[in-house]
Amino acid sequence: MPTTKWVYDFAEGSREMRALLGGKGANLAEMTRVLGPERVPMGFTITSEACVEYMRAGRREPDGLSEQVTEALQRLERRSGKRLGDLEDPLLVSVRSGARVSMPGMMDTILNLGLNDQSLLGLARRTHNERFAWDSYRRFTQMFGNVVRGIAGEQYEDAIKAAKVDRGVAHDTELDVEALGQLTETFKRIYEEHTGDEFPRDPHTQLQLAIRAVFDSWMGDRAVAYRRFNHIPDDWGTAANVQQMVFGNKGETSGSGVAFSRDEVTGAPEPSGDFLANAQGEDVVSGVRTPRDLGEMKQWMPGLYADLLDILKALEHHYKDMQDTEFTVEEGRLYMLQTRDAKRPAQAATRFAVDAVREGLLTREEALMTIDPLGLDALLHPGFDPKAEFRVLATGVNASPGAAKGEVVFTAHDAVQAAEAGRGVILVRPFTDADDVSGFHAAKGILTSEGGKASHAALVARGMGRPAVVGAGALAIDVKAKTISVDGTVIHEGDRIAIDGSRGRVTIDDVPLVPTQIDENFTTVLDWADAVRRLGVRANADTPADAQRARELGAAGIGLCRTEHMFMVEDRQPKMRSMIMARTVAARREALAALLPLQQQDFEGLFEAMAGLPVTIRLLDPPLHEFLPNLADLSAQVEHARMAGDDNLSELEALIARVDELHESNPMLGTRGCRLGILYPEIYEMQVEAILRAAKAPADPVHPEIMIPLVSYEHELELMRELVARVGRREGLREGVDYTVGTMIELPRACTSADRIARHADFFSFGTNDLTQTALGFSRDDAELKFVPMYLDRKIIDRSPFETIDEAGVGWLVQLAGWLGREAHLGLKLGICGEHGGDPASIDFFHRSGLDYVSCSPFRVPVARIAAARAAIAHASEGWG
Amino acid sequence: MPTTKWVYDFAEGSREMRALLGGKGANLAEMTRVLGPERVPMGFTITSEACVEYMRAGRREPDGLSEQVTEALQRLERRSGKRLGDLEDPLLVSVRSGARVSMPGMMDTILNLGLNDQSLLGLARRTHNERFAWDSYRRFTQMFGNVVRGIAGEQYEDAIKAAKVDRGVAHDTELDVEALGQLTETFKRIYEEHTGDEFPRDPHTQLQLAIRAVFDSWMGDRAVAYRRFNHIPDDWGTAANVQQMVFGNKGETSGSGVAFSRDEVTGAPEPSGDFLANAQGEDVVSGVRTPRDLGEMKQWMPGLYADLLDILKALEHHYKDMQDTEFTVEEGRLYMLQTRDAKRPAQAATRFAVDAVREGLLTREEALMTIDPLGLDALLHPGFDPKAEFRVLATGVNASPGAAKGEVVFTAHDAVQAAEAGRGVILVRPFTDADDVSGFHAAKGILTSEGGKASHAALVARGMGRPAVVGAGALAIDVKAKTISVDGTVIHEGDRIAIDGSRGRVTIDDVPLVPTQIDENFTTVLDWADAVRRLGVRANADTPADAQRARELGAAGIGLCRTEHMFMVEDRQPKMRSMIMARTVAARREALAALLPLQQQDFEGLFEAMAGLPVTIRLLDPPLHEFLPNLADLSAQVEHARMAGDDNLSELEALIARVDELHESNPMLGTRGCRLGILYPEIYEMQVEAILRAAKAPADPVHPEIMIPLVSYEHELELMRELVARVGRREGLREGVDYTVGTMIELPRACTSADRIARHADFFSFGTNDLTQTALGFSRDDAELKFVPMYLDRKIIDRSPFETIDEAGVGWLVQLAGWLGREAHLGLKLGICGEHGGDPASIDFFHRSGLDYVSCSPFRVPVARIAAARAAIAHASEGWG
Repeated sequence: MPTTKWVYDFAEGSREMRALLGGKGANLAEMTRVLGPERVPMGFTITSEACVEYMRAGRREPDGLSEQVTEALQRLERRSGKRLGDLEDPLLVSVRSGARVSMPGMMDTILNLGLNDQSLLGLARRTHNERFAWDSYRRFTQMFGNVVRGIAGEQYEDAIKAAKVDRGVAHDTELDVEALGQLTETFKRIYEEHTGDEFPRDPHTQLQLAIRAVFDSWMGDRAVAYRRFNHIPDDWGTAANVQQMVFGNKGETSGSGVAFSRDEVTGAPEPSGDFLANAQGEDVVSGVRTPRDLGEMKQWMPGLYADLLDILKALEHHYKDMQDTEFTVEEGRLYMLQTRDAKRPAQAATRFAVDAVREGLLTREEALMTIDPLGLDALLHPGFDPKAEFRVLATGVNASPGAAKGEVVFTAHDAVQAAEAGRGVILVRPFTDADDVSGFHAAKGILTSEGGKASHAALVARGMGRPAVVGAGALAIDVKAKTISVDGTVIHEGDRIAIDGSRGRVTIDDVPLVPTQIDENFTTVLDWADAVRRLGVRANADTPADAQRARELGAAGIGLCRTEHMFMVEDRQPKMRSMIMARTVAARREALAALLPLQQQDFEGLFEAMAGLPVTIRLLDPPLHEFLPNLADLSAQVEHARMAGDDNLSELEALIARVDELHESNPMLGTRGCRLGILYPEIYEMQVEAILRAAKAPADPVHPEIMIPLVSYEHELELMRELVARVGRREGLREGVDYTVGTMIELPRACTSADRIARHADFFSFGTNDLTQTALGFSRDDAELKFVPMYLDRKIIDRSPFETIDEAGVGWLVQLAGWLGREAHLGLKLGICGEHGGDPASIDFFHRSGLDYVSCSPFRVPVARIAAARAAIAHASEGWG
Repeated sequence: MPTTKWVYDFAEGSREMRALLGGKGANLAEMTRVLGPERVPMGFTITSEACVEYMRAGRREPDGLSEQVTEALQRLERRSGKRLGDLEDPLLVSVRSGARVSMPGMMDTILNLGLNDQSLLGLARRTHNERFAWDSYRRFTQMFGNVVRGIAGEQYEDAIKAAKVDRGVAHDTELDVEALGQLTETFKRIYEEHTGDEFPRDPHTQLQLAIRAVFDSWMGDRAVAYRRFNHIPDDWGTAANVQQMVFGNKGETSGSGVAFSRDEVTGAPEPSGDFLANAQGEDVVSGVRTPRDLGEMKQWMPGLYADLLDILKALEHHYKDMQDTEFTVEEGRLYMLQTRDAKRPAQAATRFAVDAVREGLLTREEALMTIDPLGLDALLHPGFDPKAEFRVLATGVNASPGAAKGEVVFTAHDAVQAAEAGRGVILVRPFTDADDVSGFHAAKGILTSEGGKASHAALVARGMGRPAVVGAGALAIDVKAKTISVDGTVIHEGDRIAIDGSRGRVTIDDVPLVPTQIDENFTTVLDWADAVRRLGVRANADTPADAQRARELGAAGIGLCRTEHMFMVEDRQPKMRSMIMARTVAARREALAALLPLQQQDFEGLFEAMAGLPVTIRLLDPPLHEFLPNLADLSAQVEHARMAGDDNLSELEALIARVDELHESNPMLGTRGCRLGILYPEIYEMQVEAILRAAKAPADPVHPEIMIPLVSYEHELELMRELVARVGRREGLREGVDYTVGTMIELPRACTSADRIARHADFFSFGTNDLTQTALGFSRDDAELKFVPMYLDRKIIDRSPFETIDEAGVGWLVQLAGWLGREAHLGLKLGICGEHGGDPASIDFFHRSGLDYVSCSPFRVPVARIAAARAAIAHASEGWG
């Protein structure tokens, strides 16, 4: 039997061999293949299979491994013309781990392997730089002890500190040759004390120990824990890469730099980057020396610069994406050390995509796959000027993108008044609830000290496109005193602040804002996306203004209009309250009659704005007590009025009696949704009447989709469907109106009996917010505040289930319901209108689940269009296209 | 093609032909077959297929139907010696509908069909009873118009009322022949006015119209609605039964009666019943005349009496159950009109079962199938003496069975003090919460004015076996004034009341109580059940006393010990509160150290009581704020203290700050269950330590099963399992203790990912209470109070999902989880510990779902044992045995 091949030269591999060579090894091989072996420092990879065998054998190298390593090393020595341990011109190598996926807890890097007390002298002579040689040796002994034998880093740091004190210097760079020599001796002593072994002088021994350390790190605690959490099998193993060191600091014909194949900020088709002559890579990025613009390299070494441009083009063509590279010039020779797809802001991403298609580099589909959908969000909102300097006062959750500046106000009422007076304000609250919604309309931005991405403040702000920073816990907000205290600074009502909802920052400095950046490239890319995506994209919108914006951003309809938001507008609250306080059906009908024309007006506005596109209207959903004051506050008020003998006591008592009556232990699971429609049919009747009346008004034909929330039993939907039909028969209201009736699917029970429910539904719209709450038993208000952060911290979950859909639970139920629903009702329309409708990862899931459309907040519509296109492209071959 | 057979004589059918002949027709045929045609008034059934054909043809009789009816009628005339419409001795018949299942909204009964102005005279002569003949005719014209042509009953009632006013009499029975004659004329006129037709004189026409009316009623609104709700297909159709009338009021050789094959109260093997000579069946049951004891029939007609005893025996043998019959003697001839399985109290049920097996009438399995498991509950508790007379003060929900008498107290504290003083008390509260639990221990019974079967009061009372009436809404309970007001009666603290938790009654009369009735028959039947059931039966028990009772009632272990109940005992609350108020881990550990020995003691008591049987202990589950006062109450207190300048203000403010911090919008979906264990590991660590320490104490080996509540992610269980192991390693705590670790499955997400969770679990216990809450989105506290009653009323559901498991949603998830769990973990133990564990219909479902055991409150253990046996017998042939 021939021995297994354990070792591959870089020139032998390719990126397809990731499983065997690991990510790093495959990438080095690929670059070698693309650019030729002379452009990438030579080296070889020991396979992950060797690692697995080593583990299986109880940490013993498999047969043939050490021979193959020796042979590979000899090839490397032959080609580089240097020898490991050579006294004149020693070959130095790096050793790095590299698993199939990058993984924390794995051994990082050992540089300068091959140095000992003898070869050090050769290196010093060869580089004419004694200090460089000693510093390299010092670093090697430190890394080797720390990484290979697990000696605590502090021991080394302490020794360096002591040396600096001893010499009276502040920085490592000020230590001279003698000091570095002494430190190296100290490090070798630490090694011996800790391990009981002498520090290995023989470079071949050093190499063997380093490779073992890579393999051993695969079974280290952190790596094992990470794999367990991420379901990565233990038997993947890790590869080890051995690569020749090159140095950019060997004099004026050497240097290092970073280069982007295009401008990394604008996406313009000129390469950009930084470089420094006579410097190592870390000098370029550390900021100790000011790097020069890449273009200046043309003067320095015109030939090499031309080579670099060719290389960048070649890499871009090969990887079919904008590249971010690192290079080193060693004595006039250009080496590429790394290439990867460049991170880029949204503006650059769309420009690259459009240019690349124009250049024939990419197809439209390929171009779409280079765009990060979430990044686009930034283009749609004003932002802090990226060049502006300012002090961050506090940070919080980036709950709703965009930036805003204004005067601080502490109540919705004050916000409304200020807006009426023409002043721009930021509404600041510890947290928000339904009472504050009118303030959201009036304010330029929202800031809270509590809550997370799915808090009330975040949801409402996102829905309206208001920038919001929430959960800025450092702020002590005193609503009564009307002050914000933070780190000794006190901000009063009327003081100006600025918030950056895209990055969660708050400042009192006057940061300049930059406007939205919707340009031609953006539009082009979205048009392409529309051509390939299968999923429809609608918007959640409750007002004509939102609807208008949604249409402008490309929504194909409204997927969710929350009618309760219409009742939260300040001047309607008294009418709503008198409806709730009504004790008889007759009194309730009277109050509803006053709401009817307002509601009808709302729908007319929506229908007008949507000009014939479908509009899904959800009938009243939240529990009624949400429209009344909070019980605990009211208790204190009543007690106060009682003791003070206030006149309004009896009024307060009537109010608290009703609040108490409507109070529920778990309102989320209480009298809401269609339960309200069954208990108080007159409410839903008013809403349906308003919809049908409004649908007769506009010129374009209107397609209202009446949506019944929180159905768990088929009979609930059947009863509500009958209610709609009953209203429709009144005065011929339904004549000429092309309406349909469907339901939110937002309870697990609705999913398991979706076949029965589908018989009474024209459409299903998955309410994944509530479905997440019930399937996981997570009250959003409580979970985001209390235990979700802890769960993320403990790695019980990797993303909040309110942000990206929980596929194993919530997603499973969505797929079940879709399947059962369509089994029972061919052609049933399936949509989703939870927050997940704007999340790219979730959109990919909904595409795979065969849904017809997603609905998200207006500003997420472009994100969803791109994400839907990417999903269609990614899964085209799986039959989901 | 031969014509379909549309008509069957009773002598041709049998009970197996229920689908074709309907329930009533099949039963009449079966009785005819068993007793011979001379014992059952003759007749025939028109099949449900005829009805279906009639409907399909647009309400036209199918070919051959009228010929077959005529032939059947001729056979009937031949055999009875009477003719329809005969002037001397007319044949009279009844016409009744009878579908496969009994169904409201179907046509009921037309009696005396065959009468007209001529045959009436023959009947009068033949019976020597002119008034009887006219009254029969009057009834016929009334029923015919009302039932066949849908004329409103009030029209007839009004006419009767007018006749009584006219004659100056009070009762129908006082109307004389002349008045009846006039009424009959009036009724015929009503018919003509309403229908435009003459009242049909020809008896054959009468019969044809009556049969059509039966068929038409199948498509009546109420019947259609009922079928839709109960998923009964429209194409079942209904049969129509035509039967000869017999009369027990033809003189002294005629009579009517009801007869049970055994004593219907005690189950003793002597027939019992009532009869009256010269009377119709309704006279026996109406109470107008006092019936005579069945035994006296021996003197009256010894031969017929002997025949009746033989018939009862024959029916009992045939139907293999105790029978409840109706009979009529017409001129010395005995006819059986009906037989059905007798309803009986639990005592009679067990006696019959044991006797029937002894007599060889039934096998043990058959005997078990005659017992209603829920009925047994009554035997285990004292009850109101059934013979006692008393005034019912109020009624409520029969929340926990048994009866109790005692002095009224209004607080848990007063209950505890009274109990210590040796006084028996009834704890009366508007509703109860965790603070009241010590009062439950102290009281003899519980009475509330709010809440349903799944309210806190009901659950806790049932768990402890305390009688409870809840939701007695007529009671105005003023806790501050310490009074109950109801209908003008005011009850003060210390007044004596009695409650009947089995039937939901409250009285201030001194009703005598009868003790529990556990007798030998009861024990025998339970032994049989144990021999055939596959499901294990455990009990939910939190105290040694409960555990002891559970064992006595046959529990095979504890399926759920709720450790939080141990902290709700009055003297432990301060310790628990200081644990919750602790702001640092160190302070919390200190408070926990004080709770440890108490908790250990609790477990020692439980283990002792269970003598080696398995004990499943659930670690702390409820949210911590449940141990603190209510936020709204506290707000008022703080406001009070603030305004009054009370000394305790700062203490109250600290308390409210913590309550506010722990407050959650939806505590049911908040920081509870294993989320507590992850957030405050020291709490679970204390509990595990207490369990392991206690497990070392007793002589019998102990098998604690440590149960982690509210798991939704596998990693939660993995972390908690590690916590248990970690504690176990401390000081060798786990040495010699045979413990296992499992989880509650009570969230939909846990069901859909049960395979992953099962890898870390030794057992699953389904928490169907919480699973019902989350799958349906029903907060139990809110739903039972607010919308479940309405849902029952609107027929959206037919039973509360908290009482009987919702198979389509919750049950589906249970089965999924069981299947996934066992796929991943062969031999995984599956149990259920929700309230459904004591419900027979749910137990049948759990048996079919392949669970290993159910766990229920101690007093439900016998019910569950019988129900499990019945499930095993019922499904033996389905491979679930």
